[in-house]
Amino acid sequence: MLLPELKRRRDKIRSLMAQHHVDAALIACNTNLLYTCGQIINGYLYLPLASPACLFVKRPNMISGEQIYSIGKPEEITGILREQGLPIPGAIMLEGDELSFGEYNRLAALFPESEAINGTPLLRRARSIKTEMEMEMFRRAGIAHAKAYGKIPPVYREGMTDIEFSIEIERLMRLEGSLGLFRIFGRSMEIFMGSLLAGSNAAEPSPFDFALGGKGIDPSAPVGASGIVIRKGQSVMVDYVGNFNGYMCDMTRVFSVGQLPQEAYTAHQVCLDVQETVASLAKPGAVCEDLYNAAVDVAAKAGFADYFMGAGRKARFVGHGIGLEINESPVLAPRIKTELEAGMVFALEPKIVLPEVGAVGIENSWAVTTEGVEKITCCREEIIDLLG
Amino acid sequence: MLLPELKRRRDKIRSLMAQHHVDAALIACNTNLLYTCGQIINGYLYLPLASPACLFVKRPNMISGEQIYSIGKPEEITGILREQGLPIPGAIMLEGDELSFGEYNRLAALFPESEAINGTPLLRRARSIKTEMEMEMFRRAGIAHAKAYGKIPPVYREGMTDIEFSIEIERLMRLEGSLGLFRIFGRSMEIFMGSLLAGSNAAEPSPFDFALGGKGIDPSAPVGASGIVIRKGQSVMVDYVGNFNGYMCDMTRVFSVGQLPQEAYTAHQVCLDVQETVASLAKPGAVCEDLYNAAVDVAAKAGFADYFMGAGRKARFVGHGIGLEINESPVLAPRIKTELEAGMVFALEPKIVLPEVGAVGIENSWAVTTEGVEKITCCREEIIDLLG
Repeated sequence: MLLPELKRRRDKIRSLMAQHHVDAALIACNTNLLYTCGQIINGYLYLPLASPACLFVKRPNMISGEQIYSIGKPEEITGILREQGLPIPGAIMLEGDELSFGEYNRLAALFPESEAINGTPLLRRARSIKTEMEMEMFRRAGIAHAKAYGKIPPVYREGMTDIEFSIEIERLMRLEGSLGLFRIFGRSMEIFMGSLLAGSNAAEPSPFDFALGGKGIDPSAPVGASGIVIRKGQSVMVDYVGNFNGYMCDMTRVFSVGQLPQEAYTAHQVCLDVQETVASLAKPGAVCEDLYNAAVDVAAKAGFADYFMGAGRKARFVGHGIGLEINESPVLAPRIKTELEAGMVFALEPKIVLPEVGAVGIENSWAVTTEGVEKITCCREEIIDLLG
Repeated sequence: MLLPELKRRRDKIRSLMAQHHVDAALIACNTNLLYTCGQIINGYLYLPLASPACLFVKRPNMISGEQIYSIGKPEEITGILREQGLPIPGAIMLEGDELSFGEYNRLAALFPESEAINGTPLLRRARSIKTEMEMEMFRRAGIAHAKAYGKIPPVYREGMTDIEFSIEIERLMRLEGSLGLFRIFGRSMEIFMGSLLAGSNAAEPSPFDFALGGKGIDPSAPVGASGIVIRKGQSVMVDYVGNFNGYMCDMTRVFSVGQLPQEAYTAHQVCLDVQETVASLAKPGAVCEDLYNAAVDVAAKAGFADYFMGAGRKARFVGHGIGLEINESPVLAPRIKTELEAGMVFALEPKIVLPEVGAVGIENSWAVTTEGVEKITCCREEIIDLLG
């Protein structure tokens, strides 16, 4: 990646560091390394407020044009910094919500005279405003994602289980270039590529904080498709991550096996209305909780309050920031006072679960521009009949 | 899962806790929850040395037959323990190498009068000796894994890229029941389902500590297949994780496109010889570094020292424990004095990289029995010609 782009990202972090009186950051976790170095490396980026960054690499990598030092272990870092004449930071920022307790303490011990500060919230804040190049990465991901989804109907065969249908969709995503990896902030949520929810499985709760659940096929992976045969009159909700270049594009489309009850089409249209309402309000300065409330209002006025964002167990958000991870800032949820800013990218996913029929609704990824929002996942939004 | 099985696992942890003067453990991470509860939950298992365990669940789950408490946040745990009359632990064990720094401190703060101890090494030690039921889970995974690999030759088509071939193998694995999720201890290594290495890509380094590397198709996922067309005269090494039930079965087989140079068959046979040598020495009491040295000896005597376990960048191990994660204890590597014990399960993967041809070699998963080892991934081990 071009160094000006990396410098832009690093300077965004530095500007937040300056606001928080942090003198340097030591970055060790894959997502933040990918953000600041343009690639996954096995090593550490030392980012001082006022000097060029130094990269400490444990394994050979094709990196050039920077101050790079080969190390065997992190304990070698401080000696090299000293040799380079860099001052000991008064406050050093470490990834406190990402590094393990053991690793954090090991890295903090490299700077015994410095105050160690949890830098994860600040790094996530920096990453929440995408650069123009990141926006372009998202647009490309959106195009590939939509292209894969466009190929879904022909891979359905009558009598398939939800898992079998999932597998064919995973294959389409991979053939369009999906890397498969699903990066999630935090250690508790795990999912493989995405989820396909058919019929009543859409109402099954999962232990994870995704918009919807699903039973899964094993207690070790309790989310998504559950191995049931997809039946006539059921909806099939397809919600996969579009990781084509590191950026987690997010998109949901709904299919049906034959005709659904009229209520499903009504509910689907309500979700499209929610999307239109929120998209019309979303622009720099709009407050996340207001967008959430506007979404809930539309669903409630249409009579779907009980089924909006889940039946029984409900998701308490209608949208979430996306980036190198699927769950970035901002979150469109109650009590979130964050204002949208140009450069943010979020997924908006109004969904309604009809217990016998399944889930309906929509999800697209949206980039916040200076004037409003731009949809980056463009393909048909109506319920598509797989038999039609 | 049956409670006697869970009690057996928990008592294994308790017995190590007693040795280390730990009074209670609070378990919060998915892998350890899966081990101690038989399923992934969103919550915490409180495991005292001398009283029954208490499960604190944040989201509804179908769990019965235990002391279960519904909570909104972990701060509610200690009040409930007090109400139950459980004593404050003198030393409490937390997952210090798995929880983030922030989470560890939050959980440690629940027990301000207790000494917090990093329990990750002890939990990994307990998990390294499988129960009879876990062995059975591995045997079943091995059968499904071998079945999927047996179907590989027909999905190859001439002119395929390595990625296209990967995608068809991923599909075979999923159709046999693979859950897809690839669980790895530690935060630094990331891979999707496994790796396929064709031709010279096998010699490309990656930042990760897997046996071999590969360039990958994007800087955000630098490992495995690289998008090149597979050519005649090249080897194709297929190394996928067989996660059919939470247990990470590991198996590698080598294919060729047409005839390979004779050296490749010689090198492959050397790897089979390494496997036979190590398997004949492996039994309770055998020391890991001795097994590693025996492996290197066989390769060196055959003249392949320079290419054994990588050309250029070399892996410094020839085998690794497997379980709910791909990298468990023991590791067959230099300076590892761990002795094998009945109940351990490990992958043995002697591999040789021939720069122009690709990688050859073998990997099987082995269970340590009271007398020796049992191979749990059984299918053809010779190089199979995809054109033949």
